[in-house]
Amino acid sequence: MKKFAIVLAGCGVFDGAEIHEATLTMLAIKEQGAEYEVFAPDIPQHHVINHITGKEMKETRNVLIESARIARGDIKDLKEFYASDFDALIFPGGFGAAKNLSTVAFKGSDAEVNAEVEKAVKSMLKAKKPIGALCISPAFIAKIIGDVKVTIGQDEGTAQAIEAMGGTHIDTEHGDVVVDDENLVFTSPCYMLEADISQIWDGAYNTVEAMLKFME
Amino acid sequence: MKKFAIVLAGCGVFDGAEIHEATLTMLAIKEQGAEYEVFAPDIPQHHVINHITGKEMKETRNVLIESARIARGDIKDLKEFYASDFDALIFPGGFGAAKNLSTVAFKGSDAEVNAEVEKAVKSMLKAKKPIGALCISPAFIAKIIGDVKVTIGQDEGTAQAIEAMGGTHIDTEHGDVVVDDENLVFTSPCYMLEADISQIWDGAYNTVEAMLKFME
Repeated sequence: MKKFAIVLAGCGVFDGAEIHEATLTMLAIKEQGAEYEVFAPDIPQHHVINHITGKEMKETRNVLIESARIARGDIKDLKEFYASDFDALIFPGGFGAAKNLSTVAFKGSDAEVNAEVEKAVKSMLKAKKPIGALCISPAFIAKIIGDVKVTIGQDEGTAQAIEAMGGTHIDTEHGDVVVDDENLVFTSPCYMLEADISQIWDGAYNTVEAMLKFME
Repeated sequence: MKKFAIVLAGCGVFDGAEIHEATLTMLAIKEQGAEYEVFAPDIPQHHVINHITGKEMKETRNVLIESARIARGDIKDLKEFYASDFDALIFPGGFGAAKNLSTVAFKGSDAEVNAEVEKAVKSMLKAKKPIGALCISPAFIAKIIGDVKVTIGQDEGTAQAIEAMGGTHIDTEHGDVVVDDENLVFTSPCYMLEADISQIWDGAYNTVEAMLKFME
Protein backbone atom coordinates (compact mmCIF):
# COMPACT_ATOMS: atom_id res chain seq x y z
CA MET A 1 0.00 0.00 0.00
CA LYS A 2 1.38 3.41 -1.01
CA LYS A 3 1.91 5.80 1.88
CA PHE A 4 1.54 9.58 1.73
CA ALA A 5 2.82 12.15 4.21
CA ILE A 6 0.39 15.10 4.45
CA VAL A 7 1.86 18.32 5.83
CA LEU A 8 -0.57 20.79 7.45
CA ALA A 9 -0.11 24.48 8.30
CA GLY A 10 -2.67 24.96 11.09
CA CYS A 11 -6.47 24.74 11.02
CA GLY A 12 -8.45 27.29 9.03
CA VAL A 13 -8.13 28.94 5.63
CA PHE A 14 -7.07 32.43 6.75
CA ASP A 15 -4.27 31.55 9.20
CA GLY A 16 -3.70 27.80 8.77
CA ALA A 17 -4.40 24.82 6.53
CA GLU A 18 -7.53 25.06 4.38
CA ILE A 19 -9.80 22.54 6.09
CA HIS A 20 -11.66 21.23 3.03
CA GLU A 21 -8.45 20.78 1.04
CA ALA A 22 -6.82 18.95 3.96
CA THR A 23 -9.82 16.69 4.66
CA LEU A 24 -10.43 15.92 0.98
CA THR A 25 -6.75 15.12 0.43
CA MET A 26 -7.08 12.51 3.19
CA LEU A 27 -10.28 11.15 1.62
CA ALA A 28 -8.74 11.10 -1.87
CA ILE A 29 -5.79 9.06 -0.59
CA LYS A 30 -7.97 6.59 1.31
CA GLU A 31 -10.59 6.20 -1.46
CA GLN A 32 -7.82 5.33 -3.94
CA GLY A 33 -6.43 2.55 -1.78
CA ALA A 34 -3.46 4.30 -0.23
CA GLU A 35 -2.74 5.43 3.33
CA TYR A 36 -1.40 8.55 5.03
CA GLU A 37 0.28 10.04 8.05
CA VAL A 38 -0.12 13.69 9.02
CA PHE A 39 2.69 16.11 9.96
CA ALA A 40 3.04 19.77 10.87
CA PRO A 41 5.90 21.93 12.12
CA ASP A 42 5.98 22.70 15.87
CA ILE A 43 6.10 26.49 15.48
CA PRO A 44 3.86 29.43 16.42
CA GLN A 45 1.30 30.55 13.85
CA HIS A 46 2.14 33.88 12.21
CA HIS A 47 -1.14 35.16 13.69
CA VAL A 48 -4.71 34.13 14.54
CA ILE A 49 -7.55 35.40 12.33
CA ASN A 50 -11.20 35.62 13.32
CA HIS A 51 -12.70 33.79 10.33
CA ILE A 52 -15.92 35.83 10.46
CA THR A 53 -14.51 39.36 10.59
CA GLY A 54 -11.14 38.66 8.94
CA LYS A 55 -9.47 40.58 11.76
CA GLU A 56 -6.48 39.55 13.82
CA MET A 57 -7.22 38.15 17.31
CA LYS A 58 -4.93 38.85 20.28
CA GLU A 59 -3.96 35.22 20.73
CA THR A 60 -1.11 32.90 19.93
CA ARG A 61 -1.65 29.41 18.58
CA ASN A 62 0.77 26.63 17.60
CA VAL A 63 0.75 25.17 14.08
CA LEU A 64 1.25 21.56 15.22
CA ILE A 65 -1.41 21.74 17.96
CA GLU A 66 -4.01 23.39 15.71
CA SER A 67 -3.24 21.03 12.80
CA ALA A 68 -3.98 18.16 15.20
CA ARG A 69 -7.64 19.21 15.08
CA ILE A 70 -7.84 18.18 11.41
CA ALA A 71 -5.83 15.01 12.12
CA ARG A 72 -7.98 14.02 15.16
CA GLY A 73 -4.81 14.02 17.30
CA ASP A 74 -3.00 11.55 15.06
CA ILE A 75 -0.15 13.80 13.96
CA LYS A 76 3.65 14.03 14.14
CA ASP A 77 6.14 16.86 14.39
CA LEU A 78 7.50 17.54 10.90
CA LYS A 79 11.03 17.09 12.21
CA GLU A 80 10.18 13.37 12.50
CA PHE A 81 9.51 13.10 8.75
CA TYR A 82 11.89 10.86 6.79
CA ALA A 83 11.52 10.44 3.02
CA SER A 84 12.47 6.77 3.36
CA ASP A 85 9.23 6.08 5.28
CA PHE A 86 6.95 7.40 2.52
CA ASP A 87 6.09 7.01 -1.16
CA ALA A 88 4.77 10.55 -1.58
CA LEU A 89 4.49 13.94 0.14
CA ILE A 90 1.57 16.36 -0.24
CA PHE A 91 0.76 19.88 0.96
CA PRO A 92 -2.87 21.06 1.04
CA GLY A 93 -3.23 24.86 0.85
CA GLY A 94 -4.71 27.68 2.91
CA PHE A 95 -3.00 30.91 3.95
CA GLY A 96 -1.02 28.95 6.56
CA ALA A 97 1.10 27.61 3.69
CA ALA A 98 2.00 31.21 2.83
CA LYS A 99 2.18 32.56 6.41
CA ASN A 100 3.45 29.67 8.56
CA LEU A 101 5.21 27.20 6.23
CA SER A 102 6.66 30.09 4.26
CA THR A 103 6.39 33.89 4.05
CA VAL A 104 4.99 33.96 0.50
CA ALA A 105 1.94 35.96 1.70
CA PHE A 106 4.16 38.80 2.87
CA LYS A 107 7.28 38.70 0.72
CA GLY A 108 6.21 37.14 -2.59
CA SER A 109 9.24 35.98 -4.57
CA ASP A 110 11.57 37.04 -1.69
CA ALA A 111 9.82 34.65 0.71
CA GLU A 112 11.61 32.41 3.19
CA VAL A 113 10.54 28.78 3.60
CA ASN A 114 10.43 26.98 6.96
CA ALA A 115 13.64 24.93 7.26
CA GLU A 116 11.83 21.64 8.03
CA VAL A 117 9.47 22.11 5.08
CA GLU A 118 12.45 22.78 2.82
CA LYS A 119 14.26 19.71 4.17
CA ALA A 120 11.21 17.47 3.63
CA VAL A 121 10.77 18.67 0.04
CA LYS A 122 14.47 18.34 -0.78
CA SER A 123 14.66 14.84 0.68
CA MET A 124 11.78 13.72 -1.55
CA LEU A 125 13.38 15.36 -4.60
CA LYS A 126 16.61 13.51 -3.85
CA ALA A 127 14.71 10.23 -3.45
CA LYS A 128 12.85 10.89 -6.73
CA LYS A 129 9.48 10.51 -5.00
CA PRO A 130 6.42 12.58 -5.97
CA ILE A 131 5.46 15.82 -4.24
CA GLY A 132 1.91 17.23 -4.43
CA ALA A 133 0.87 20.79 -3.62
CA LEU A 134 -2.59 22.37 -3.71
CA CYS A 135 -3.85 25.98 -3.81
CA ILE A 136 -1.08 28.43 -2.74
CA SER A 137 1.41 25.72 -1.65
CA PRO A 138 3.00 25.45 -5.13
CA ALA A 139 4.45 28.94 -4.51
CA PHE A 140 6.81 27.76 -1.76
CA ILE A 141 7.64 24.65 -3.80
CA ALA A 142 8.83 27.02 -6.54
CA LYS A 143 10.82 28.99 -3.96
CA ILE A 144 12.60 25.77 -2.89
CA ILE A 145 13.19 24.26 -6.33
CA GLY A 146 13.41 27.32 -8.57
CA ASP A 147 13.11 25.78 -12.04
CA VAL A 148 9.81 23.91 -11.67
CA LYS A 149 6.50 23.92 -13.56
CA VAL A 150 3.48 24.52 -11.31
CA THR A 151 -0.01 26.03 -11.17
CA ILE A 152 -1.83 28.14 -8.61
CA GLY A 153 -4.79 28.70 -10.95
CA GLN A 154 -4.98 32.12 -12.59
CA ASP A 155 -3.88 34.70 -10.00
CA GLU A 156 -1.54 37.03 -11.89
CA GLY A 157 0.39 38.40 -8.91
CA THR A 158 1.21 34.95 -7.52
CA ALA A 159 1.99 33.60 -10.99
CA GLN A 160 4.46 36.48 -11.51
CA ALA A 161 6.08 35.78 -8.13
CA ILE A 162 6.52 32.13 -9.13
CA GLU A 163 8.16 33.18 -12.41
CA ALA A 164 10.44 35.57 -10.46
CA MET A 165 11.51 32.60 -8.31
CA GLY A 166 12.62 30.83 -11.50
CA GLY A 167 9.48 28.71 -11.93
CA THR A 168 7.08 28.32 -14.83
CA HIS A 169 3.43 29.00 -14.12
CA ILE A 170 0.65 27.30 -16.11
CA ASP A 171 -2.87 28.79 -15.94
CA THR A 172 -5.45 26.15 -15.03
CA GLU A 173 -9.14 25.54 -14.36
CA HIS A 174 -10.78 23.51 -11.58
CA GLY A 175 -9.60 19.93 -11.30
CA ASP A 176 -6.62 20.41 -13.62
CA VAL A 177 -3.30 18.96 -12.45
CA VAL A 178 0.02 20.32 -13.69
CA VAL A 179 2.75 17.69 -13.69
CA ASP A 180 6.45 18.54 -13.67
CA ASP A 181 8.06 15.34 -14.99
CA GLU A 182 11.59 16.38 -14.02
CA ASN A 183 10.93 17.16 -10.38
CA LEU A 184 7.85 14.92 -9.96
CA VAL A 185 5.80 17.83 -8.69
CA PHE A 186 1.98 17.67 -9.01
CA THR A 187 -0.07 20.85 -8.47
CA SER A 188 -3.74 21.89 -8.68
CA PRO A 189 -5.42 25.26 -7.97
CA CYS A 190 -8.27 24.31 -5.58
CA TYR A 191 -9.40 27.41 -3.61
CA MET A 192 -6.94 29.70 -5.43
CA LEU A 193 -9.85 29.76 -7.90
CA GLU A 194 -13.35 30.74 -6.76
CA ALA A 195 -14.65 27.25 -5.97
CA ASP A 196 -17.31 25.15 -4.32
CA ILE A 197 -16.44 22.10 -2.26
CA SER A 198 -17.12 19.65 -5.12
CA GLN A 199 -14.46 21.40 -7.21
CA ILE A 200 -12.00 21.01 -4.32
CA TRP A 201 -12.83 17.30 -4.23
CA ASP A 202 -12.03 17.09 -7.97
CA GLY A 203 -8.72 18.89 -7.49
CA ALA A 204 -7.58 16.80 -4.52
CA TYR A 205 -8.76 13.54 -6.10
CA ASN A 206 -7.10 14.23 -9.47
CA THR A 207 -3.82 15.28 -7.87
CA VAL A 208 -3.62 12.13 -5.73
CA GLU A 209 -4.67 10.01 -8.72
CA ALA A 210 -1.90 11.49 -10.90
CA MET A 211 0.66 10.90 -8.13
CA LEU A 212 -0.47 7.28 -7.64
CA LYS A 213 -0.38 6.65 -11.38
CA PHE A 214 3.23 7.78 -11.42
CA MET A 215 4.02 5.35 -8.56
CA GLU A 216 2.56 2.30 -10.36
CA MET B 1 -32.58 22.94 -5.53
CA LYS B 2 -32.98 21.49 -2.01
CA LYS B 3 -31.33 23.54 0.72
CA PHE B 4 -29.79 22.17 3.91
CA ALA B 5 -28.87 24.06 7.06
CA ILE B 6 -25.74 22.57 8.65
CA VAL B 7 -25.24 23.36 12.35
CA LEU B 8 -21.66 23.25 13.69
CA ALA B 9 -20.40 23.07 17.27
CA GLY B 10 -16.89 24.53 16.93
CA CYS B 11 -13.83 23.22 15.08
CA GLY B 12 -12.18 20.00 16.24
CA VAL B 13 -13.37 16.60 17.41
CA PHE B 14 -12.56 16.93 21.13
CA ASP B 15 -14.10 20.35 21.87
CA GLY B 16 -16.06 21.26 18.74
CA ALA B 17 -17.49 19.90 15.49
CA GLU B 18 -15.74 16.84 14.08
CA ILE B 19 -13.98 18.33 11.04
CA HIS B 20 -14.22 15.33 8.68
CA GLU B 21 -17.92 14.81 9.44
CA ALA B 22 -18.62 18.52 8.89
CA THR B 23 -16.61 18.76 5.65
CA LEU B 24 -17.97 15.50 4.23
CA THR B 25 -21.55 16.52 5.05
CA MET B 26 -20.97 19.63 2.94
CA LEU B 27 -19.47 17.54 0.13
CA ALA B 28 -22.29 14.95 0.32
CA ILE B 29 -24.89 17.72 -0.05
CA LYS B 30 -23.10 19.40 -2.96
CA GLU B 31 -22.27 16.14 -4.79
CA GLN B 32 -25.95 15.14 -4.67
CA GLY B 33 -27.11 18.37 -6.29
CA ALA B 34 -28.31 20.24 -3.23
CA GLU B 35 -26.97 23.34 -1.47
CA TYR B 36 -26.26 24.39 2.12
CA GLU B 37 -25.82 27.23 4.56
CA VAL B 38 -23.81 26.87 7.76
CA PHE B 39 -24.89 27.97 11.24
CA ALA B 40 -23.52 27.83 14.79
CA PRO B 41 -24.62 29.31 18.11
CA ASP B 42 -22.78 32.44 19.30
CA ILE B 43 -21.74 31.00 22.69
CA PRO B 44 -18.45 30.22 24.45
CA GLN B 45 -17.06 26.70 24.01
CA HIS B 46 -17.32 24.55 27.13
CA HIS B 47 -13.51 24.36 27.02
CA VAL B 48 -10.52 24.18 24.66
CA ILE B 49 -8.70 20.85 24.27
CA ASN B 50 -5.14 20.41 23.01
CA HIS B 51 -5.85 17.77 20.35
CA ILE B 52 -2.41 16.17 20.76
CA THR B 53 -2.31 15.74 24.56
CA GLY B 54 -6.07 15.61 25.20
CA LYS B 55 -5.56 18.16 27.98
CA GLU B 56 -7.52 21.34 28.61
CA MET B 57 -5.84 24.60 27.50
CA LYS B 58 -6.21 27.84 29.49
CA GLU B 59 -8.07 29.64 26.74
CA THR B 60 -11.59 30.59 25.80
CA ARG B 61 -12.93 30.25 22.29
CA ASN B 62 -16.32 31.01 20.75
CA VAL B 63 -18.36 28.31 19.00
CA LEU B 64 -19.52 30.56 16.13
CA ILE B 65 -16.05 32.04 15.49
CA GLU B 66 -14.31 28.64 15.53
CA SER B 67 -17.03 27.00 13.40
CA ALA B 68 -16.36 29.75 10.83
CA ARG B 69 -13.00 28.05 10.15
CA ILE B 70 -14.80 25.03 8.68
CA ALA B 71 -17.25 27.29 6.83
CA ARG B 72 -14.48 29.54 5.39
CA GLY B 73 -16.18 32.53 7.05
CA ASP B 74 -19.52 31.90 5.35
CA ILE B 75 -21.59 31.24 8.47
CA LYS B 76 -24.59 32.65 10.34
CA ASP B 77 -25.57 32.89 13.98
CA LEU B 78 -27.98 30.04 14.75
CA LYS B 79 -30.49 32.58 16.04
CA GLU B 80 -30.96 33.63 12.40
CA PHE B 81 -32.13 30.14 11.40
CA TYR B 82 -35.74 29.88 10.20
CA ALA B 83 -37.21 26.52 9.19
CA SER B 84 -39.14 28.22 6.38
CA ASP B 85 -35.84 29.01 4.58
CA PHE B 86 -34.68 25.37 4.43
CA ASP B 87 -35.72 21.92 3.25
CA ALA B 88 -33.58 20.04 5.77
CA LEU B 89 -31.42 20.49 8.88
CA ILE B 90 -28.33 18.42 9.70
CA PHE B 91 -25.92 18.19 12.65
CA PRO B 92 -22.46 16.65 12.13
CA GLY B 93 -20.92 15.23 15.32
CA GLY B 94 -17.84 15.73 17.46
CA PHE B 95 -17.69 16.29 21.22
CA GLY B 96 -18.86 19.87 20.65
CA ALA B 97 -22.34 18.45 20.03
CA ALA B 98 -22.23 16.94 23.52
CA LYS B 99 -20.34 19.79 25.25
CA ASN B 100 -21.46 23.00 23.48
CA LEU B 101 -24.80 22.26 21.76
CA SER B 102 -25.86 20.14 24.73
CA THR B 103 -24.41 18.74 27.96
CA VAL B 104 -24.77 15.08 26.97
CA ALA B 105 -21.03 14.51 27.56
CA PHE B 106 -21.38 15.47 31.22
CA LYS B 107 -24.95 14.67 32.21
CA GLY B 108 -26.05 11.81 29.95
CA SER B 109 -29.83 11.45 29.99
CA ASP B 110 -30.15 14.49 32.31
CA ALA B 111 -28.47 16.73 29.72
CA GLU B 112 -29.64 20.21 28.82
CA VAL B 113 -29.83 21.28 25.17
CA ASN B 114 -28.88 24.77 23.95
CA ALA B 115 -32.13 26.75 23.54
CA GLU B 116 -31.42 27.78 19.93
CA VAL B 117 -30.59 24.21 18.94
CA GLU B 118 -33.82 23.02 20.55
CA LYS B 119 -35.80 25.76 18.79
CA ALA B 120 -34.26 24.88 15.40
CA VAL B 121 -35.06 21.17 15.82
CA LYS B 122 -38.60 21.81 17.04
CA SER B 123 -39.34 24.22 14.19
CA MET B 124 -38.30 21.56 11.64
CA LEU B 125 -40.39 18.92 13.43
CA LYS B 126 -43.39 21.24 13.28
CA ALA B 127 -42.78 21.91 9.57
CA LYS B 128 -42.43 18.13 8.95
CA LYS B 129 -39.00 18.64 7.37
CA PRO B 130 -36.18 16.11 7.72
CA ILE B 131 -33.50 16.36 10.41
CA GLY B 132 -30.15 14.56 10.10
CA ALA B 133 -27.70 13.86 12.93
CA LEU B 134 -24.31 12.13 12.81
CA CYS B 135 -22.07 10.55 15.45
CA ILE B 136 -23.06 11.74 18.98
CA SER B 137 -25.60 14.37 17.80
CA PRO B 138 -28.52 11.89 17.82
CA ALA B 139 -28.25 11.91 21.63
CA PHE B 140 -29.42 15.52 21.97
CA ILE B 141 -32.06 14.92 19.29
CA ALA B 142 -33.44 12.18 21.59
CA LYS B 143 -33.29 14.59 24.52
CA ILE B 144 -35.41 17.11 22.58
CA ILE B 145 -37.94 14.70 21.05
CA GLY B 146 -38.04 11.87 23.59
CA ASP B 147 -39.82 9.12 21.65
CA VAL B 148 -37.56 8.87 18.60
CA LYS B 149 -35.65 6.04 16.91
CA VAL B 150 -31.94 6.82 16.41
CA THR B 151 -28.46 5.30 16.26
CA ILE B 152 -25.11 6.34 17.67
CA GLY B 153 -23.49 3.06 16.60
CA GLN B 154 -22.87 0.51 19.34
CA ASP B 155 -21.74 2.43 22.44
CA GLU B 156 -23.73 0.88 25.30
CA GLY B 157 -23.55 3.79 27.73
CA THR B 158 -24.81 6.33 25.21
CA ALA B 159 -27.46 3.91 23.91
CA GLN B 160 -28.75 3.45 27.48
CA ALA B 161 -28.83 7.23 27.99
CA ILE B 162 -30.90 7.57 24.80
CA GLU B 163 -33.33 4.90 26.04
CA ALA B 164 -33.54 6.72 29.41
CA MET B 165 -34.53 9.89 27.49
CA GLY B 166 -37.45 7.94 25.99
CA GLY B 167 -35.77 7.10 22.70
CA THR B 168 -35.17 3.80 20.93
CA HIS B 169 -31.58 2.97 20.04
CA ILE B 170 -30.74 0.74 17.06
CA ASP B 171 -27.23 -0.77 16.87
CA THR B 172 -25.58 -0.06 13.50
CA GLU B 173 -22.45 -0.57 11.44
CA HIS B 174 -20.56 1.94 9.27
CA GLY B 175 -22.65 3.67 6.63
CA ASP B 176 -25.99 2.49 8.06
CA VAL B 177 -28.73 5.10 8.36
CA VAL B 178 -31.57 4.73 10.88
CA VAL B 179 -34.75 6.46 9.71
CA ASP B 180 -37.51 7.50 12.10
CA ASP B 181 -40.53 7.83 9.78
CA GLU B 182 -42.68 9.59 12.37
CA ASN B 183 -40.27 12.39 13.23
CA LEU B 184 -38.31 12.36 9.94
CA VAL B 185 -35.04 11.92 11.80
CA PHE B 186 -32.06 10.37 9.95
CA THR B 187 -29.02 9.21 11.95
CA SER B 188 -25.70 7.44 11.25
CA PRO B 189 -22.84 6.49 13.62
CA CYS B 190 -19.75 7.92 11.82
CA TYR B 191 -16.88 8.39 14.34
CA MET B 192 -18.93 6.93 17.22
CA LEU B 193 -17.57 3.70 15.71
CA GLU B 194 -13.82 3.21 15.20
CA ALA B 195 -13.59 4.50 11.63
CA ASP B 196 -11.39 5.69 8.80
CA ILE B 197 -12.26 8.73 6.72
CA SER B 198 -13.79 6.65 3.88
CA GLN B 199 -16.31 5.20 6.34
CA ILE B 200 -17.23 8.75 7.41
CA TRP B 201 -17.78 9.62 3.77
CA ASP B 202 -20.14 6.63 3.45
CA GLY B 203 -22.07 7.67 6.57
CA ALA B 204 -22.44 11.32 5.58
CA TYR B 205 -23.27 10.47 1.96
CA ASN B 206 -25.88 7.84 2.86
CA THR B 207 -27.55 10.10 5.44
CA VAL B 208 -27.87 12.99 2.98
CA GLU B 209 -29.03 10.58 0.26
CA ALA B 210 -31.77 9.17 2.52
CA MET B 211 -32.90 12.69 3.44
CA LEU B 212 -33.00 13.81 -0.21
CA LYS B 213 -34.91 10.69 -1.19
CA PHE B 214 -37.55 11.57 1.38
CA MET B 215 -37.81 15.09 -0.07
CA GLU B 216 -38.45 13.89 -3.67
